[in-house]
Amino acid sequence: MKDRCLGCVIIPSSDAHLSEYPAECYKLREYLSGFTGSEGVLIVGEKRAVLLVDSRYYIQAEQQTIATDIHTAPIDKDGTRNQIISSWAMKLCCMMPIGLFANVTSYADAEEIMLTCEEKGYSVRQLRSEVYEQFWLGERPAFSPSKIFIHDVKYAGESAKSKISRLRMLMQERSVKGLLISKLEDVAWLLNLRGSDLPDTPVFYSYLLVCPRKVILYVRKEAMTPEVEEYLESFGVVVDSYENHLKFKRSDVISFEPHSSAAEVEDKGNNFPYAGPDIVANMRLIKNETQVSGIRNAMLKDCVALVRMLKWLEENKGKGIFETDIADKMIEYRSQMPDYKCESFDTIAGYADHGAIVHYHAVKGMDYDLKSENIVLIDTGGNYFDGTTDITRTVSLGAVTPQQKHDYTLVLKGHIDLAIARFPNRMTSKMVDVIARKPLAMECLGYGHGTGHGVGHFLCVHEGPLSFSSDVKLEENMIITDEPGLYREGHHGIRIENMVRVKKIKENEFGTFLGFEVLTLCPYDYDLIDYSLLDKDELLYLEEYTLRVVSEMERFAQLTPEEMNWLRTKCENGMEKILTASQGMR
Amino acid sequence: MKDRCLGCVIIPSSDAHLSEYPAECYKLREYLSGFTGSEGVLIVGEKRAVLLVDSRYYIQAEQQTIATDIHTAPIDKDGTRNQIISSWAMKLCCMMPIGLFANVTSYADAEEIMLTCEEKGYSVRQLRSEVYEQFWLGERPAFSPSKIFIHDVKYAGESAKSKISRLRMLMQERSVKGLLISKLEDVAWLLNLRGSDLPDTPVFYSYLLVCPRKVILYVRKEAMTPEVEEYLESFGVVVDSYENHLKFKRSDVISFEPHSSAAEVEDKGNNFPYAGPDIVANMRLIKNETQVSGIRNAMLKDCVALVRMLKWLEENKGKGIFETDIADKMIEYRSQMPDYKCESFDTIAGYADHGAIVHYHAVKGMDYDLKSENIVLIDTGGNYFDGTTDITRTVSLGAVTPQQKHDYTLVLKGHIDLAIARFPNRMTSKMVDVIARKPLAMECLGYGHGTGHGVGHFLCVHEGPLSFSSDVKLEENMIITDEPGLYREGHHGIRIENMVRVKKIKENEFGTFLGFEVLTLCPYDYDLIDYSLLDKDELLYLEEYTLRVVSEMERFAQLTPEEMNWLRTKCENGMEKILTASQGMR
Repeated sequence: MKDRCLGCVIIPSSDAHLSEYPAECYKLREYLSGFTGSEGVLIVGEKRAVLLVDSRYYIQAEQQTIATDIHTAPIDKDGTRNQIISSWAMKLCCMMPIGLFANVTSYADAEEIMLTCEEKGYSVRQLRSEVYEQFWLGERPAFSPSKIFIHDVKYAGESAKSKISRLRMLMQERSVKGLLISKLEDVAWLLNLRGSDLPDTPVFYSYLLVCPRKVILYVRKEAMTPEVEEYLESFGVVVDSYENHLKFKRSDVISFEPHSSAAEVEDKGNNFPYAGPDIVANMRLIKNETQVSGIRNAMLKDCVALVRMLKWLEENKGKGIFETDIADKMIEYRSQMPDYKCESFDTIAGYADHGAIVHYHAVKGMDYDLKSENIVLIDTGGNYFDGTTDITRTVSLGAVTPQQKHDYTLVLKGHIDLAIARFPNRMTSKMVDVIARKPLAMECLGYGHGTGHGVGHFLCVHEGPLSFSSDVKLEENMIITDEPGLYREGHHGIRIENMVRVKKIKENEFGTFLGFEVLTLCPYDYDLIDYSLLDKDELLYLEEYTLRVVSEMERFAQLTPEEMNWLRTKCENGMEKILTASQGMR
Repeated sequence: MKDRCLGCVIIPSSDAHLSEYPAECYKLREYLSGFTGSEGVLIVGEKRAVLLVDSRYYIQAEQQTIATDIHTAPIDKDGTRNQIISSWAMKLCCMMPIGLFANVTSYADAEEIMLTCEEKGYSVRQLRSEVYEQFWLGERPAFSPSKIFIHDVKYAGESAKSKISRLRMLMQERSVKGLLISKLEDVAWLLNLRGSDLPDTPVFYSYLLVCPRKVILYVRKEAMTPEVEEYLESFGVVVDSYENHLKFKRSDVISFEPHSSAAEVEDKGNNFPYAGPDIVANMRLIKNETQVSGIRNAMLKDCVALVRMLKWLEENKGKGIFETDIADKMIEYRSQMPDYKCESFDTIAGYADHGAIVHYHAVKGMDYDLKSENIVLIDTGGNYFDGTTDITRTVSLGAVTPQQKHDYTLVLKGHIDLAIARFPNRMTSKMVDVIARKPLAMECLGYGHGTGHGVGHFLCVHEGPLSFSSDVKLEENMIITDEPGLYREGHHGIRIENMVRVKKIKENEFGTFLGFEVLTLCPYDYDLIDYSLLDKDELLYLEEYTLRVVSEMERFAQLTPEEMNWLRTKCENGMEKILTASQGMR
């Protein structure tokens, strides 16, 4: 930094493709700070350093940096992300230039940070990947590309050729001549190709250039197989090496999406960011019928694995099993299912007060023993060729407190109210969010995370830009999670999550109305519910959902008779409670 | 148009200050089209003309242009307002230049329309006020300014001097050197001055220039009085003539708010629009304690007038009274109240199917006879020195159908659910909107208008930019209406509206939670409610509200004993029904 006259340097968590979970060779922020969370920004000044994290990671960041001089601060309070980053950078830089890594910061973020700082008289320098390399002090992990494989059209539901031709039409409508795609899930989705370069997300490091008459895939030679080469050739995709992605002709007019392209993309050739919604993302978010039925099938498989794990948990709690065993069991049981590829993220299993750490990661040897009491929060998901799953259940292992029951029921109310809601089709997802928050907010309670996120199809478990905090308009066949929560630090955490599909309910003189189809199948914890807090519609949902879990699992016929009996008994006990409560209402 | 080689001209509804309800001399769109609604855009081409209106006015616009060649089309379907205006202008202009009145179109709208049209190869010309004059064909109504008067600080709660110094601090924070204010309510609010230039809105035509060391009020000489002159001098405001508002020095750097300033403001001097939220509007939206208690008092007065009218309506229905009589009675009864100035908008009284016309305006001789059956929708408001009011009640005049009852109850549920909602303070108003829409949407019903709008303090009844469709963050002491509705064309219309104040409920480790204080006092129609559709919380609200109306009216002691008895009996009958229904719930 001194050699380059920098006052401070901003180090984000992402890679050159703005991935949420990057490969090891891009974990510079983790390498320098020791903080292992999936998101956070480190700003290193000459004398001081600050780690900015969101509410999910307040506790963890504090703990993981306790032995260092790094100060931690929130990135989600009093201002937008970029405002907070800018204001800390200006504090730490001692009026010297602020450094920004142009290879791992998005064009949009870089623009905003530069504008904010320069307006106040600070100067910002974009640093190249060579400088990024030097910050690793020679310890940057090597990267060895995985082999790319074809995601069969029988799963994808639409050929790559058809997707590219739809994309070209949309580009033409928006007057976009050429499009350089950086986002790994966009490339993978568009070409029906997958890889294993990132943990839990089946993508591969690459760029794709789509022009009216040519398509070039920039990818490492080692990642290619003869099969993939032949496949790409069959619909006219040219392969070039990964490093050449910015070496197109000066005469080419190339657009890029400012939020998912690194700032470095700008300064080569005749590039410019395009305004407005992300063309490829908007195509990707709406699933076709093949994908939807694939996802329904993946959910059935996931339910088998989950029921197996829950039965194992019930039978082994108090006998010396640990939080990390839950993650292992999930991998074991999911691996028994056809078309399973990998987990879709590291399972979170937080017992007692660990449940209050929103993105808790249990470490063997430091994890809790699961006793026959208290509650455990389990958030887990798998990647199957026919779909990606994500589910959270909070489960009682024995006696629970009235507060735990009360908290669980409020979260469940929000979760159900959103699932059964109907709303006009002109609403953006963040306009629906309050429905899940309301039962908690009525008691002045809430949660610091979003209510839900888009989910990819055999792709990212967090599929942007859709989420219940976004301005994306909800449209039929979008897939999103419904996961309110409540966390009492030092006590317990509760989250309940299903995946849902946006579906059209009705079109009449009052407009078009949308609602959700619940995709995830797995019973709730009937012992954790205070039924007196539920209204008629919520009880009806519980009744129908419980019956559906049993009948779909019977039809799917993958549980052993013993497992099916266990599930049936659980659900019957639940039904009894639900029906007793419902009778009180009539 | 031909002389100027224009293919078409865009004629909006607004005046040079972008007022919602302009003076007669600015009603060019009405003059040319015959359409009297408060909003709409006329585009006149050589051969064809189109009138673009929102869903409130679909029916009315069609009816009022039936004898002309003017085609009507929606301005709120398939695109933003400016997209729709642009696309119609491009259709009608026959590839010749499109004309835009720079004196009555906002800078922001003009920019967007020009960008959209020019991107597609069309040319757009900004027309001056001289051309606007010519479009009136010599028939432009004369404008005679009203006398400006002081809005006493005992009502306003803060001196103009203090407001200007707060504004200057905010300007400094935002690096705004000079600010030219066009919006009439901003000028009136900032200076604690009022006038009567517009129907129902106590403002006066003027501009205000605020600089670090000077403040200039550009106003017509005839509007001034010695008292106001002396008052302005006392805190250093210089008065200049209205026409000079763009004649400041070339060296002055003047900012303006792009949405509330006409496009013509740009091309004089060293002006530029500032980005980001409107500084003055954001100050104006948050009421001080004096204003809040003034508004509460205005509500008590309005309740007296309303009860008087409702009693009169009950006693005279079926005896040859008409829709327009309701408006007359409201003026008569409000005039009996202290500090009454004028109505805050023309009363809407729509009986039977007239109720389904959202912004129905009854005309004497063409209005319905009010019989002892069916329902009438009454939306009315007053301007008192201590506050502006806006209330809607839908009232049964005799036998009602089960559908009317069902519809009324669904609207009431949304109205109550919003009133009692609590939500995190980071939410924008449009994120809360769905709460009022949900009970209707669950049955695939809805309404085409916003759920509510900001309300000024002895100012505009629609106080922007706050509304339940806006991105304004709700903050304590904002005033907004809560008015869901349901309209069945050809049958009946229902709307229920109260004004509410945003209030802080609690601050704890989960954040700050906001809710509403209901300000409007006037019973609902207890005969129109299907109590079996209400939940516990909704019944509790009804119970508390009904008791509150009676006790506050008793305390206020302005109703005659006979009127008070009438109100008490109404409320007691209501309470009986509410309590019977509540017992069923326990």
